[in-house]
Amino acid sequence: MDHAALDLSLDASALTARLVDFPSVSGDEKALADAVEQALRTLPHLTVDRYGNNVVARTNLGRAERVVLAGHLDTVPIADNVPSRLDDDGYLWGCGTSDMKSGVAVQLRIAATVPEPNRDLTFVFYDNEEVAAHLNGLGHVAEAHPDWLAGDFAVLLEPSSGQVEGGCQGTLRVLLHTQGERAHSARSWMGSNAIHTAAPILARLAAYEPRRPVIDGLEYREGLNAVRIEGGVAGNVIPDACTVTVNFRYAPDRSEAEALAHVREVFADCGVSELVVDDHSAAALPGLSHPAAVAFMEAVGGTAMPKFGWTDVSRFSALGVPAVNYGPGDPLLAHKRDERVLASLVDDCAERLRGWLTA
Amino acid sequence: MDHAALDLSLDASALTARLVDFPSVSGDEKALADAVEQALRTLPHLTVDRYGNNVVARTNLGRAERVVLAGHLDTVPIADNVPSRLDDDGYLWGCGTSDMKSGVAVQLRIAATVPEPNRDLTFVFYDNEEVAAHLNGLGHVAEAHPDWLAGDFAVLLEPSSGQVEGGCQGTLRVLLHTQGERAHSARSWMGSNAIHTAAPILARLAAYEPRRPVIDGLEYREGLNAVRIEGGVAGNVIPDACTVTVNFRYAPDRSEAEALAHVREVFADCGVSELVVDDHSAAALPGLSHPAAVAFMEAVGGTAMPKFGWTDVSRFSALGVPAVNYGPGDPLLAHKRDERVLASLVDDCAERLRGWLTA
Repeated sequence: MDHAALDLSLDASALTARLVDFPSVSGDEKALADAVEQALRTLPHLTVDRYGNNVVARTNLGRAERVVLAGHLDTVPIADNVPSRLDDDGYLWGCGTSDMKSGVAVQLRIAATVPEPNRDLTFVFYDNEEVAAHLNGLGHVAEAHPDWLAGDFAVLLEPSSGQVEGGCQGTLRVLLHTQGERAHSARSWMGSNAIHTAAPILARLAAYEPRRPVIDGLEYREGLNAVRIEGGVAGNVIPDACTVTVNFRYAPDRSEAEALAHVREVFADCGVSELVVDDHSAAALPGLSHPAAVAFMEAVGGTAMPKFGWTDVSRFSALGVPAVNYGPGDPLLAHKRDERVLASLVDDCAERLRGWLTA
Repeated sequence: MDHAALDLSLDASALTARLVDFPSVSGDEKALADAVEQALRTLPHLTVDRYGNNVVARTNLGRAERVVLAGHLDTVPIADNVPSRLDDDGYLWGCGTSDMKSGVAVQLRIAATVPEPNRDLTFVFYDNEEVAAHLNGLGHVAEAHPDWLAGDFAVLLEPSSGQVEGGCQGTLRVLLHTQGERAHSARSWMGSNAIHTAAPILARLAAYEPRRPVIDGLEYREGLNAVRIEGGVAGNVIPDACTVTVNFRYAPDRSEAEALAHVREVFADCGVSELVVDDHSAAALPGLSHPAAVAFMEAVGGTAMPKFGWTDVSRFSALGVPAVNYGPGDPLLAHKRDERVLASLVDDCAERLRGWLTA
């Protein structure tokens, strides 16, 4: 198959099929990044920048607002599901159809067919989204060239079944350690049982009532959960250590510092000998009250939903750019062997964005 | 070194040194069993039987009572502590000095020097005590030749620092499983957290008040302890399973069935989805009210102590033979690199037993 050129005259669904047939598993995005860069450089209304395998293209029309459309080029490993195929019901099957070559196709289609948008546009194509956070291309661009990502509002074309998902919840993981003293279990009174000491931690978790705050009209649902517990030395030894790993998913009205302070407070009197932060990613506000977002919601229709899982919208939020997820893929099919997308939804998504940007 | 013959004319402490210099790590007891058998066969007042590497020698004097003196031939692996050495303070150092070649030396010394005891005697030397229970030579003899172990009272010469330890506590290990339903931790309300479900189990353990029953004048101390806890799938998944491993050490006034019923009752309303018995060894009554035991206590002196850990006295108990631990070794030094025994205590122990058996 000739991967040399991407034909941007195809409609978004047909372009999705071409992109799926152009493998770009995480770490192996160079050829596709080359092709995307080359295709965009043929469009005279765009200036194109590149950093690694990340490509950024912008209009410079001096509009009052700038909107960012972003998507990742990589996919999870192929699972016997490339090349793509279109079935009789109008579904396009294959690796990345949902997550998120359909979104990338919509980006490219808008880039090619909206030379005079009502808002300045920035198109971001990045690598390594499906792997460890430190490899993420959007993060690398944000660090090296934050100005490339500047804007009033961002749309991440991650799979959301054509629904707008606003902001995202934060996620904090802490290790709660308890301490005891070893002894032979036949003489347990000589020691102190660290697993028993963890009893108030589990009781607190079991009794915890998570908040459901409404922010920008979206109801978020927090959660505080043990995701792991470990303790024990041998079948006849009183254990001297136990660790409960707790994951706090929190709404975007809490800052990182507030989220951690809350967790410290919840477990303040539960016998914790040490609290260690294992991982922390901030929440992102939905920003749906921004004029660009209001117009966007009107154009694409439907009701915005809160995003519970953590996504790259948080990276835009950290740069001061309110962001939402909105893409044609189905998030429940992402990463699956039977991944597919409804072709008509891909074209519909492109049309709605075009409507918003040309009204 | 010539291992061919054991010189039973040596006193018990000197004989201990010879036995320590004759390595017999678990699984490698044949040469020592051969030497013990050969030495005992030179004694005309004894009949000698052998089963595997287990040697049993008996007097047949038609006495009113029969006493069993038992000890294991094996040791834990040698840790640069063979051959033995006697220091200036009278301590004999080396692998097995405490656990329990000093006890075996006392057995051999009594066998050699008390040809006409006031009670018929049975000497049992067995292999594989330091390894898995199913390999234990005393268990093999009990199964194949229970008549060889018959008696009114048994003394196991395990290290007890010259104190009598009566009976032993039982030990029951159960797995308490809780069940939940997996979900992404960002949408925890879609699942059910099996670690949180275990909260009442830990609360019950933390609040448990163990009994301290007095039996035959000895105070036992029970204990109910979590020895392991495990649960968790991944850092972002609500776990669907958690297992708490609980060890119940119980006094000999409870049968195996009663002990299990008690544990079931303790955790009856704690959200346990399944209780699995992992391991169970019965307790043994001290039997200190038996006339032979009363005379024994008078002869060896001191105050009997309860035995909290499980020992082979329970195997005698299961055969209907009350049994105690009484030996010159120090249980706190067993299995240690700096294992040692006070030589004078070995000879003292032999003298006290001789006194009891010749009074």
